Amino acid sequence: MTENNLLIVHGGGPTAVINASLYGAIIEAKKYPWLNHIYAARNGTGGLLNEDFIRLDEACAEDLKLLLQTPGSAIGSSRDEINADDYDRMAEILQRNNIRYVLFNGGNGTMDTCGKLYKACKNKRLDIKVMGIPKTIDNDISITDHSPGYGSASRYIAQSVKEICADVKSLPIHVVVVEASGRNAGWITAAAALADDGDGLGPDLVYLPERPFDEERFIEDVRGLLEKKKGIVVVASEGLKNAKGEPVVEPVFRTERAVYFGDVSAHLAQLVIKRLGYKARSEKPGLLGRVSIALQSRIDRDEAIFAGELACRAALQGESGKMVAFKRISTSPYEIEPFLVDIDQVMLNERTMPDDFINEAGNGVTEKFKAWCGPLIGEKLDKMISFN
Amino acid sequence: MTENNLLIVHGGGPTAVINASLYGAIIEAKKYPWLNHIYAARNGTGGLLNEDFIRLDEACAEDLKLLLQTPGSAIGSSRDEINADDYDRMAEILQRNNIRYVLFNGGNGTMDTCGKLYKACKNKRLDIKVMGIPKTIDNDISITDHSPGYGSASRYIAQSVKEICADVKSLPIHVVVVEASGRNAGWITAAAALADDGDGLGPDLVYLPERPFDEERFIEDVRGLLEKKKGIVVVASEGLKNAKGEPVVEPVFRTERAVYFGDVSAHLAQLVIKRLGYKARSEKPGLLGRVSIALQSRIDRDEAIFAGELACRAALQGESGKMVAFKRISTSPYEIEPFLVDIDQVMLNERTMPDDFINEAGNGVTEKFKAWCGPLIGEKLDKMISFN
Repeated sequence: MTENNLLIVHGGGPTAVINASLYGAIIEAKKYPWLNHIYAARNGTGGLLNEDFIRLDEACAEDLKLLLQTPGSAIGSSRDEINADDYDRMAEILQRNNIRYVLFNGGNGTMDTCGKLYKACKNKRLDIKVMGIPKTIDNDISITDHSPGYGSASRYIAQSVKEICADVKSLPIHVVVVEASGRNAGWITAAAALADDGDGLGPDLVYLPERPFDEERFIEDVRGLLEKKKGIVVVASEGLKNAKGEPVVEPVFRTERAVYFGDVSAHLAQLVIKRLGYKARSEKPGLLGRVSIALQSRIDRDEAIFAGELACRAALQGESGKMVAFKRISTSPYEIEPFLVDIDQVMLNERTMPDDFINEAGNGVTEKFKAWCGPLIGEKLDKMISFN
Repeated sequence: MTENNLLIVHGGGPTAVINASLYGAIIEAKKYPWLNHIYAARNGTGGLLNEDFIRLDEACAEDLKLLLQTPGSAIGSSRDEINADDYDRMAEILQRNNIRYVLFNGGNGTMDTCGKLYKACKNKRLDIKVMGIPKTIDNDISITDHSPGYGSASRYIAQSVKEICADVKSLPIHVVVVEASGRNAGWITAAAALADDGDGLGPDLVYLPERPFDEERFIEDVRGLLEKKKGIVVVASEGLKNAKGEPVVEPVFRTERAVYFGDVSAHLAQLVIKRLGYKARSEKPGLLGRVSIALQSRIDRDEAIFAGELACRAALQGESGKMVAFKRISTSPYEIEPFLVDIDQVMLNERTMPDDFINEAGNGVTEKFKAWCGPLIGEKLDKMISFN
């Protein structure tokens, strides 16, 4: 009798809860006694193509629990370039290893791979179920209300900006520019606005990549605020572009393999000093925004586990070529409903912020966005006190 | 009958536990029924000179507890320039307001102010007790084993670098340079080495401002490591200088009021791309390293409370012109003993890392440093798991 094996593959940059989805998938898979092995592709699709599998069915419960507090990807991940004929090879490898179920945990690029592998298996008439688990800090996967990973990235930026605002308020000597992740989509940057949950400790200005960045308007925005208060906190997307669609920071230099842009936050801080003669500094937490376990959103983590479980269960029940997605039933009280979406509806279809989530001036978000995003960051932010 | 009042003043940049010392001082002061009012100088010495006082004796217990989880300074802080004759004015203001006890919570600059005010009061034969509470993330106050604020800054950088290492290990495509605070003293930068508590998730290279930074050696260090592994994590002090004592990053520009240096981390990442043609990125958490409540060190917070209590008690018992300091009795098990040091022994006497805490190659720390610093970051860092 041949084996029934399941394979989990991680793709792209990790999130604070990618391993929580892995946990959910493994816990679900372990419920099926007829499943012989739970494999992971070591370091993503590269591991799959090299038949380099990690055996996960032997992991003890205690180790599995640690997945919930481990950043990065506990089975490795990849940004491999995949050629058209790689999909046929992948399908053959799956068949040879009696892998009948494959779960891809990743963002838009990974869902593209997931969809193409699904088609390759179908063309070869192989009975292999291929399912996608959404994962991205950037929240740029379409159809789903939001993706696991985003809530934690949001909690990180909201709490961090709140803390910076408390610092700046107590020693208001400079303009502080905080750089947030998300090159084309402003979801994370926007979440910084959740810092202010009624105590005034929130960013003064928020610039999203969905709106062209105008240097003159930025200077006027800051100048206007400096007339009223001394310490200003600005949050800016790493991907700000001008009206021509060019990055606001010029490339510092180019090599054969990479273009090196300067940091947007440093650039804006320099502008403030140069143009307004006011002290300014920049903070760029960068990768820290996707690895912080202390600032994981509990709801995000729970949903990540759930997405892993659900993708696994759906595959084992015969679903294929689909991704787990969430539908927002209600915002207050917060309620979502999972559903499965055809993978070709989400493949490489980057979702940016809708207009009604961005304020008219293009330097902040709307209450509608705050209401929508609020539940995703989990528990309320730490309460603070000021006697000043 | 005249009043007996106490005044608390914060100076310089906040730490994650400056408000914990404030809490300790207030709680202690509230124990003395003959003390009429507990004041804070609004926004530091400026508030003192303007007789702008915040009444703290009316704060309720619940609000006071929030001080333990509030970053920034809850009574404001300052970097005011103080003129020689300001000290006499301060002394007169204290006398006029029946302030018999003054607690200064701050770093080297604030201890300088504290010492000068002590002398001004003494010269005027005023019965005013002036005490210092050490506070700095940079750990550059001399005599004391360490200062409140440093433990939390250390926990922040250690946990953050550990998390970045987990991310880089799972997707090893670049050299990551993390910038740490401390322009002249490498204490915080060095604490990044505590990330590796036996699981290998620690920085590969650590560059401190105590050693001249040699670009060629840096490139060779990275090149050598890249032959063995693909993802490298470097931690560099914001204050790196070359053999001539010049900052390694040239000033981007100067204005009348400020010199704007580029970021060291961005500079080193660019060097890696230019010289080695390898992907590199930089992270600069900056202010986040002194405001994170989630990564407060519990021991640091307890010691901060204790230092506040002790300075208050000592003042009320008649001590003056002194700062609370800690003596290390034992490292394992960790034990400290508080003592009072004459303020003129610590005034503006910046302490850097001793030689035996820095490795021979000048690109890391010694086990002796790790043993010394270990207890200060509090509880063990989050345990992580890898199946890769």
